[in-house]
Amino acid sequence: MNRQLLHTPEGVRDIYGKEYAQKLCVEEKLRRQFNLYGYQDIQTPTFEFFDVFSKEIGTTPSKDLYKFFDKEGNTLVLRPDFTPSMARCAAKYFMDEDVPIRFCYGGNTFTNTSSLQGKLCEATQMGAELINDGSVEADGEMIAMAVESLCQAGLLDFQVSIGQVEYFKGLCSQAGLSEETESELRELISGKNRFGAEELLMEKGIPEDHQNMILMTSDHFGSVEVLEQAKSMELNQRSLNAILRLEKLYQVLCGYGVEKYISFDLGMLSKYNYYTGVIFKIFTYGVGDAIAKGGRYDKLLGYFGKNAPAIGFMVVVDDLLLALQRQKGGIAAPKDSGQTLIYHAGNYEQMLAKARKLRKNGIMVSLIPET
Amino acid sequence: MNRQLLHTPEGVRDIYGKEYAQKLCVEEKLRRQFNLYGYQDIQTPTFEFFDVFSKEIGTTPSKDLYKFFDKEGNTLVLRPDFTPSMARCAAKYFMDEDVPIRFCYGGNTFTNTSSLQGKLCEATQMGAELINDGSVEADGEMIAMAVESLCQAGLLDFQVSIGQVEYFKGLCSQAGLSEETESELRELISGKNRFGAEELLMEKGIPEDHQNMILMTSDHFGSVEVLEQAKSMELNQRSLNAILRLEKLYQVLCGYGVEKYISFDLGMLSKYNYYTGVIFKIFTYGVGDAIAKGGRYDKLLGYFGKNAPAIGFMVVVDDLLLALQRQKGGIAAPKDSGQTLIYHAGNYEQMLAKARKLRKNGIMVSLIPET
Repeated sequence: MNRQLLHTPEGVRDIYGKEYAQKLCVEEKLRRQFNLYGYQDIQTPTFEFFDVFSKEIGTTPSKDLYKFFDKEGNTLVLRPDFTPSMARCAAKYFMDEDVPIRFCYGGNTFTNTSSLQGKLCEATQMGAELINDGSVEADGEMIAMAVESLCQAGLLDFQVSIGQVEYFKGLCSQAGLSEETESELRELISGKNRFGAEELLMEKGIPEDHQNMILMTSDHFGSVEVLEQAKSMELNQRSLNAILRLEKLYQVLCGYGVEKYISFDLGMLSKYNYYTGVIFKIFTYGVGDAIAKGGRYDKLLGYFGKNAPAIGFMVVVDDLLLALQRQKGGIAAPKDSGQTLIYHAGNYEQMLAKARKLRKNGIMVSLIPET
Repeated sequence: MNRQLLHTPEGVRDIYGKEYAQKLCVEEKLRRQFNLYGYQDIQTPTFEFFDVFSKEIGTTPSKDLYKFFDKEGNTLVLRPDFTPSMARCAAKYFMDEDVPIRFCYGGNTFTNTSSLQGKLCEATQMGAELINDGSVEADGEMIAMAVESLCQAGLLDFQVSIGQVEYFKGLCSQAGLSEETESELRELISGKNRFGAEELLMEKGIPEDHQNMILMTSDHFGSVEVLEQAKSMELNQRSLNAILRLEKLYQVLCGYGVEKYISFDLGMLSKYNYYTGVIFKIFTYGVGDAIAKGGRYDKLLGYFGKNAPAIGFMVVVDDLLLALQRQKGGIAAPKDSGQTLIYHAGNYEQMLAKARKLRKNGIMVSLIPET
């Protein structure tokens, strides 16, 4: 036998037994919560035309996409995430609709990376998108739903970090930075490279007060007070509006009773131009990266010909499961594994009748021959 | 805008709204039924190494596989079906286990065909495999479970056709046919080309009584009486054993109370050498092809280094859904679509409180701003 036959490719794996039962249980709870908020399930193809995930739209570099061809020679791509597909569907099926549209989804996503660092090449994501609603109440709903979903899934300790990309953009335009410098600076600040950021600002000859305001974004993280701290600076209208929006958002989140999970981080800067307003990440113990993230992307649907505001979030189910397994008290046990009935040639009919009766009563039964 | 962006590749599609709610509902019912029979969910990767689906193991021609490469240059394949992956898992995780193993699965499968004839390139399959149990009771369990799953999913009228590949093989060895001729003959009889089959047998100089026995397999379909008819011929031991096994199987199925769904078809010949005993297909109105199929494959696990008998079945969920939509009375309605609460600036807090209360009571609520 070819021993290789037993192996799965690097970065993908089999899940079975108790672990998969837990995963299914968690998925059911997340979906249930999305549905309670009025989100309707949608399933898009596992692969799409390359253009849907091209660099103008997607967040995954082209080299990390799994690409292949159909018989007509078109380049197809295994979806690296769901948001572009959701945006496509909103445009395709609800082009002229202007009332809020609520989609939720669950399924696997694919990233072709060999520098794995423990990351899976195939990961299960579940998430939701709210389209045609640009309100702060919509921002609040998305974050509150994310929090309640994780609670329902059994996660005990976690923290939502909220940022606002407009705040940083306001500071940069106030300082007169070019788009290129802004992007370079965002990389440096995201990477916690304060020294590099300072050097870049000096090199560009940015006045010291503006330099300080920009560099201080990295210090503005923590409870709701950081919004006050930022407001005390001389912000331009754009940055101020971003802060005022976050204040309103906090009020909405208090209305949902989820304020204890909330913190702010004005230095949270998405690496991509994808997001246009509030962004958030959810962190927990035992998992290094955020287990859930989301934000407002009011321009993405425009690529598909529909000008509509939108906000979404997604949770990496595999990471959530890891966090649940590692937390104190472990993970809520899924349904039991049922009964086993052993039969022999002489009593098969009786045992079968018994098994059928138990199954009718919702009890799982394995019928096994005596050996 | 690039109009092409809105399209999905040929043969794959988006499913949303009521249709997807129905699909999820059907999937839940099938899974529930598999679990009641003691089958445990397992999830394998969407793609595997090419070898797992190579022609010795799989039933999909290599040209119809979606193939691509990982960063190490390995050829990967989107799974065209689940059985080889299940066999791999049984060998990998339960190599030395000899008690019965019950797996069930659900997910999408991929066939790269441009001659679509209405077939989807991405189709959802759900199914089950029972490994380490070569008994006729295992055959019966698999067929009875298939029947009960479809009933639970709401399918009203359908028929299970049961064949036995050993019966035909017995006839061929009795007639002294070479493996090559047997295979050619199987193609002809599967394709309902009786004239071609007759010609081939004459050309090979097969005695007339053996010719007749072989050609009559196409006539041996219908209720359980066809087994009597076949037995009345002068069968060799191999063919006779196959018929005796089918008789016992029928008894087992009567024990499950599913006999009204059962018919036999001794001319049902799988095109592939995959199956080794009982095979079955389930047909219903409104869908041309079988919506479910299965059979015993006692040699497949050997490719993965585990010698163990196995039987499985799978249902194409998309085809089942089509049948449910077309049947009289339609499809059982899934859960309702919930309530909509419209708020304005002045009453947001009250409406939010109301929405939260309703959701706590399990009612789906969409919160929408007044326009």
